[in-house]
Amino acid sequence: MEETISMSYGSGGKKTSHLIEDIIIPQFNNEVLCELADGALLNVSGRIGFSTDSFVIYPYFFPGGDIGKLSVCGTVNDVIMSGCVPKYLSLALIIEEGFSIDELRRIVNSIAETSKYAGVQIVTGDTKVVDKGHGGGIYINTSGIGEKIEGLNLSKERINKGDKVIITGNIGDHGVSVLAVRENLLDDDLIESDCAPLIELLPIVNKYKEHIKIMRDPTRGGVATTLNEFIENSELCIELEEDLLPIDSKVMAACDILGLDPLYSANEGKALLIVNNSVAEELVDDLKSIEMFKDASIIGEVNMNVPGKVVMKNFLGATKILYKLTSNILPRIC
Amino acid sequence: MEETISMSYGSGGKKTSHLIEDIIIPQFNNEVLCELADGALLNVSGRIGFSTDSFVIYPYFFPGGDIGKLSVCGTVNDVIMSGCVPKYLSLALIIEEGFSIDELRRIVNSIAETSKYAGVQIVTGDTKVVDKGHGGGIYINTSGIGEKIEGLNLSKERINKGDKVIITGNIGDHGVSVLAVRENLLDDDLIESDCAPLIELLPIVNKYKEHIKIMRDPTRGGVATTLNEFIENSELCIELEEDLLPIDSKVMAACDILGLDPLYSANEGKALLIVNNSVAEELVDDLKSIEMFKDASIIGEVNMNVPGKVVMKNFLGATKILYKLTSNILPRIC
Repeated sequence: MEETISMSYGSGGKKTSHLIEDIIIPQFNNEVLCELADGALLNVSGRIGFSTDSFVIYPYFFPGGDIGKLSVCGTVNDVIMSGCVPKYLSLALIIEEGFSIDELRRIVNSIAETSKYAGVQIVTGDTKVVDKGHGGGIYINTSGIGEKIEGLNLSKERINKGDKVIITGNIGDHGVSVLAVRENLLDDDLIESDCAPLIELLPIVNKYKEHIKIMRDPTRGGVATTLNEFIENSELCIELEEDLLPIDSKVMAACDILGLDPLYSANEGKALLIVNNSVAEELVDDLKSIEMFKDASIIGEVNMNVPGKVVMKNFLGATKILYKLTSNILPRIC
Repeated sequence: MEETISMSYGSGGKKTSHLIEDIIIPQFNNEVLCELADGALLNVSGRIGFSTDSFVIYPYFFPGGDIGKLSVCGTVNDVIMSGCVPKYLSLALIIEEGFSIDELRRIVNSIAETSKYAGVQIVTGDTKVVDKGHGGGIYINTSGIGEKIEGLNLSKERINKGDKVIITGNIGDHGVSVLAVRENLLDDDLIESDCAPLIELLPIVNKYKEHIKIMRDPTRGGVATTLNEFIENSELCIELEEDLLPIDSKVMAACDILGLDPLYSANEGKALLIVNNSVAEELVDDLKSIEMFKDASIIGEVNMNVPGKVVMKNFLGATKILYKLTSNILPRIC
């Protein structure tokens, strides 16, 4: 077999069949996909959540994951953040001519493992090959469908004064990990991306569903940008306490060297939750009892100090406004 | 405003907000999308169809359409071919640094117009920007959700000896149109792509739903490759009659010049149907009464002459086997 992808793998003919039937399909052993029609027929009940994301990250392999794992995590997490239990994914690959078939196999294997862990089925797909110089090795789009969790109503409008801001773990790991690899920093002491499906968050969400106002995974733009989206154009202010922010010491050190701010660095396995004050501490305790959320913390609260803004208070009591990210700190991070 | 897309449009920050909220969202005026969460909540009932497709066509603008229109048609048609009424689309853009914002506006406008015509709502989306030299100007992924048409059961297993093969119009227009534009052929007498959502097929499908065995839109690989997928590894043979194939004379002339076979050229607004013999003629008559299907024809039948193969009989009675497409006749055709 040839060792790289040639244009004829994208022709829709025999080579495409080989690529799909021999390399991709065997990894995803489910009846719906095996039908190989242009669309999948699914049974769903009630309201559904629907989300899409393209992944253009470079390098394809990074500490803690690869573009395949990331492409499942990103969409699974978006479906969860919209208040749904993820069920089905589509998988669309745009492969650049010359891409290694061995690397493709590794990526597809990673997609299979991650989707199995997350309890989602890949049910429909598409593969395109583009000519050399017109791609990024491999770009992946996944779209996801989930079933709405009854009784959970997420909306910015439900955020109130007094609510607490919770993060499910350390801040900024993914963005710093990818940058460190690209820049060949910290060779002996790798920072792992936090890339993970937030599937273990579902029981907690279910338990506290009446008290959760909104959830979002702080990916591109980081925690600061995501929190701004919650309260911009409202009378509310989100006030973070710098001392409460959980940041890994290696991430902090790398940020110091690079002049980055972890609050603007992407995460790929964390959630921000705005919850009613009355359950905040109990919810965090429940989170901490789960290994992947052991660094969960209340990091701030909603008040009306600076309407429409996110501010951070340091240990001296001084506050600064955290604006949305404006310029690009890192291209192709997800 | 800057006239091209820069990397910061993909940062997840303010520029991304501008791109999404000022250029993209205003075209798709619907409440679900305007929420701008990472996922959309939808009401669906019963079984659903789910399909995904990426579009990497070059040039982005071609006679009869553009990559925006195509990205809606392709997925809408796949959802219809899986036996569903299309309802919702996701829209994911991968834009190369330096892409013209004016062209982006035209493409987004075209997506909006086509989805309106097709009766589908764009409900969730994603935008990534990749650095110059790592993209194709613009790549688009759409995923679609539709509601299953009750009583329509599409399956290769339902195909029987005696069934008829119907095509809803002229063969090969899209592929030849794109190639002609790329090669600067036929300047004064453009061949238009057939790119169209097959939404007007739905009433016909509903009327004859008990008698339709399978449907597929013959895109990459063309009519010959799609028909092979219906009967490969079965005891059945699909026999086409060359004299019955509807092919536009300009398409035929261009194919002659270029040494192409229209049976392997992509279509983007046609369907192949295998139907019970008893309704085939009436169904074609109904199709012909609709302007976009005026060239619909019965082009062959299912028999057992050459098991597992698609064959074509010419006017002398000689037959040749039509294999699946092997090599690539045209990259980035869809």
